[in-house]
Amino acid sequence: MPYAPEKPHPGFIAARAGFTTGKDSPRDFLERGIAVIEARDAEVHAFVVTDFAAARTAADAASKRYKDGNPRSLLDGCPLAVKDMIQTGDLPTQMGSALFKGWQAPVDAACVYALRQAGAVVIGKTVTTEFAAGHTNETHNPYDLARTPGGSSSGSGAAVGAGMVPLALGTQTRGSVIRPAAFSGAVGFKPSVNAIHTGGVHPLSPTLDHVGIIGAALDDVWAAAHIMAAVPGGVSGHHVLSGTPDLPAAKAPRRLALLPFAEWNDAGAATLSAMEGALEKIRGAGCEIVHPDDYAPLATLQQKLLPMIDRDSFDIFAYEMQWPFAAYPPERLNPRLQDLLARGRAVTERQYHTALAHRDALRALTQDFAHRFDGFVTLASTGPAPLGHDETGSRHYQVPWSYLGFPCFTLPVMAADGLPLGLQIMGYETRTPNLAAISRWIMDAILP
Amino acid sequence: MPYAPEKPHPGFIAARAGFTTGKDSPRDFLERGIAVIEARDAEVHAFVVTDFAAARTAADAASKRYKDGNPRSLLDGCPLAVKDMIQTGDLPTQMGSALFKGWQAPVDAACVYALRQAGAVVIGKTVTTEFAAGHTNETHNPYDLARTPGGSSSGSGAAVGAGMVPLALGTQTRGSVIRPAAFSGAVGFKPSVNAIHTGGVHPLSPTLDHVGIIGAALDDVWAAAHIMAAVPGGVSGHHVLSGTPDLPAAKAPRRLALLPFAEWNDAGAATLSAMEGALEKIRGAGCEIVHPDDYAPLATLQQKLLPMIDRDSFDIFAYEMQWPFAAYPPERLNPRLQDLLARGRAVTERQYHTALAHRDALRALTQDFAHRFDGFVTLASTGPAPLGHDETGSRHYQVPWSYLGFPCFTLPVMAADGLPLGLQIMGYETRTPNLAAISRWIMDAILP
Repeated sequence: MPYAPEKPHPGFIAARAGFTTGKDSPRDFLERGIAVIEARDAEVHAFVVTDFAAARTAADAASKRYKDGNPRSLLDGCPLAVKDMIQTGDLPTQMGSALFKGWQAPVDAACVYALRQAGAVVIGKTVTTEFAAGHTNETHNPYDLARTPGGSSSGSGAAVGAGMVPLALGTQTRGSVIRPAAFSGAVGFKPSVNAIHTGGVHPLSPTLDHVGIIGAALDDVWAAAHIMAAVPGGVSGHHVLSGTPDLPAAKAPRRLALLPFAEWNDAGAATLSAMEGALEKIRGAGCEIVHPDDYAPLATLQQKLLPMIDRDSFDIFAYEMQWPFAAYPPERLNPRLQDLLARGRAVTERQYHTALAHRDALRALTQDFAHRFDGFVTLASTGPAPLGHDETGSRHYQVPWSYLGFPCFTLPVMAADGLPLGLQIMGYETRTPNLAAISRWIMDAILP
Repeated sequence: MPYAPEKPHPGFIAARAGFTTGKDSPRDFLERGIAVIEARDAEVHAFVVTDFAAARTAADAASKRYKDGNPRSLLDGCPLAVKDMIQTGDLPTQMGSALFKGWQAPVDAACVYALRQAGAVVIGKTVTTEFAAGHTNETHNPYDLARTPGGSSSGSGAAVGAGMVPLALGTQTRGSVIRPAAFSGAVGFKPSVNAIHTGGVHPLSPTLDHVGIIGAALDDVWAAAHIMAAVPGGVSGHHVLSGTPDLPAAKAPRRLALLPFAEWNDAGAATLSAMEGALEKIRGAGCEIVHPDDYAPLATLQQKLLPMIDRDSFDIFAYEMQWPFAAYPPERLNPRLQDLLARGRAVTERQYHTALAHRDALRALTQDFAHRFDGFVTLASTGPAPLGHDETGSRHYQVPWSYLGFPCFTLPVMAADGLPLGLQIMGYETRTPNLAAISRWIMDAILP
């Protein structure tokens, strides 16, 4: 089925009106998703494990709360898939690794705990690449089984893209939420670093690790992020996700900065044409888009961000990954991960601290643009999902905002070659609700 | 047996000369400790669990390395006890809580991993108060069984104090390393925050959690800290523990600042007299000691630090403790911990961020004294270990440097009422090796 961004899945919150009138219920909503899983997961392989019985019990309890006029939150009864890097107290957490085969965590991770408190219905765990950093696992892209779903949150992207669940949790250290969301025609949101508590998520690089959300609809994704940030609180000393669980009203940005990373070198003609069409619609709706060629400080930012994609961000990532992987028996890790760990051991303490200092400087430099630009816009990926399953696609467009720790969305508003393509909207650590308001406006501008 | 600070246990490194000549061996060293455990642990209750067989195998391997002239590190073969808040891949980690009864971690914590790589011999897990923050457990003070060993690293302090092991790991969020070390006549060292990786240590408050060391001898303690800091690296973005595994040479401080917290209000006459005697010896050896009455900026620092002992440091501690405890079934936690968690839920996000900002300001203010003072000196506790086992003693003298995240030692150079009393030496985040050099000089000055 060729992808049509004009007909997105409306998501969970849009269905809530029916829950109170009794025309629909969280249980019925869940069953529609289970039917898709049963029809398609034998070929998509989004899930490692599911527990439909427990999900049905939880959905029935939520259905009753709507009937009683007493739902717990905007997401009470919302089916939720959880990436298998994130602990759940009921289902095993296996990290996409033979080393954690059958491992059972004692309690839910902070983010899962928060959503369950709000009534979300955990339906299963989704496939991750090995420890979100190593070899790819069994998931296929729901829009073309011959293609990668992206990674490392492979199953979370595919489960949402296939319409199995409206909402899934992922993690992003370099590009692992934005890329699979974009490849699956879903909304992806990576809040600012540590706005969502990482407790109970297997660490890769504490400086760069984020919890993120992949969902069918922007309002679902925003509500999930807000609930996860509010219940356990963020990680100490970091910016919080302010605002309310309701998606902010659409707000027209006055001016967006375009960041054509690497001058679009890796993007194909169909991708560039789709991107130009999207930008044209944004301009047509009244928002100025500034190219680095037309504003020297923006060119400087782009020039400074580009080299650190491979250098500083990699040094931080690989150096910090040494723990806890050093304690894992190397022969139980696949070669790609072993190689990554060896490269981490080769980073010196001095290189690491230099990379952290560069990051501080670039965060400050980027934040300074808040006076001139409401946000930044670029591709979410170099193109639609590539063919094959051994790789999950280029990280080129996702790394910069992971490295900065600033918030970003991918919006499913484009297609290329009949496949989903994401528009990435990036913002400032201190202004996340504003970024959500702009993203809502952009979706309306491109897909009215 | 009344405590005599003049006759300390010489520690492990001091015994190494005998390992190379063949007069002694790590295996023999271990057996001497096991004999003490067998003679005394039925009354002291320092250990939750031991594995003498595994320890003997590891000690034999180390003995052979010394024989071959190829020891792995200064601590190759050193018996080590590990607080039961710190994961070990071989022995269960039970957190002093019924909730973790029998729980087995998949791998060693970062700090344990580092010491094992260096050849240290894990002999067992030591008693902690419930999650290092709740009700006291079964350990008694080795110098007077009717008294508390201090806490929360109760078993680690008692095991070193009784001569069962030369070295034990602890954790300190408010006062949990310095207090039990002082009550047991041991050296205690709390490095600067996150200089030692906290991976695999059950979190309480990430801003305030420290891994610390309790040991018979200063050189053993320093070597352990350095090895733990060097192998997995510290936590991202924090100051590292520079220097080498060898204890720096003794260095005479020119000037130390005295911080008589709360004007010694809680300290008894014997304690104050012992403290005055120690200060007199330091002065006699040529170091000036400045009282806040004689230097107004120091009085200001003391006045600013005091109120946060109960206010800001508690707000940070209790607020951050919400995760992961929120996911633990409350009925499985003892009332003291339940109460603490309820107080954490009452701290608002605004109060929390205000407390973090105050902490930043006080860290900067304290660091500025580096130009004038080589370090700070005060009591390690309000007095020797109090009678009874329901409480672990006042945190009054330990909280300030926990809150700042700066390094401190307690030195076993005093006694009061026939019991151990610690002298606390506190320094700056950026100058930890210098603090070790001063501490060595102070020990020599007081116990020549």
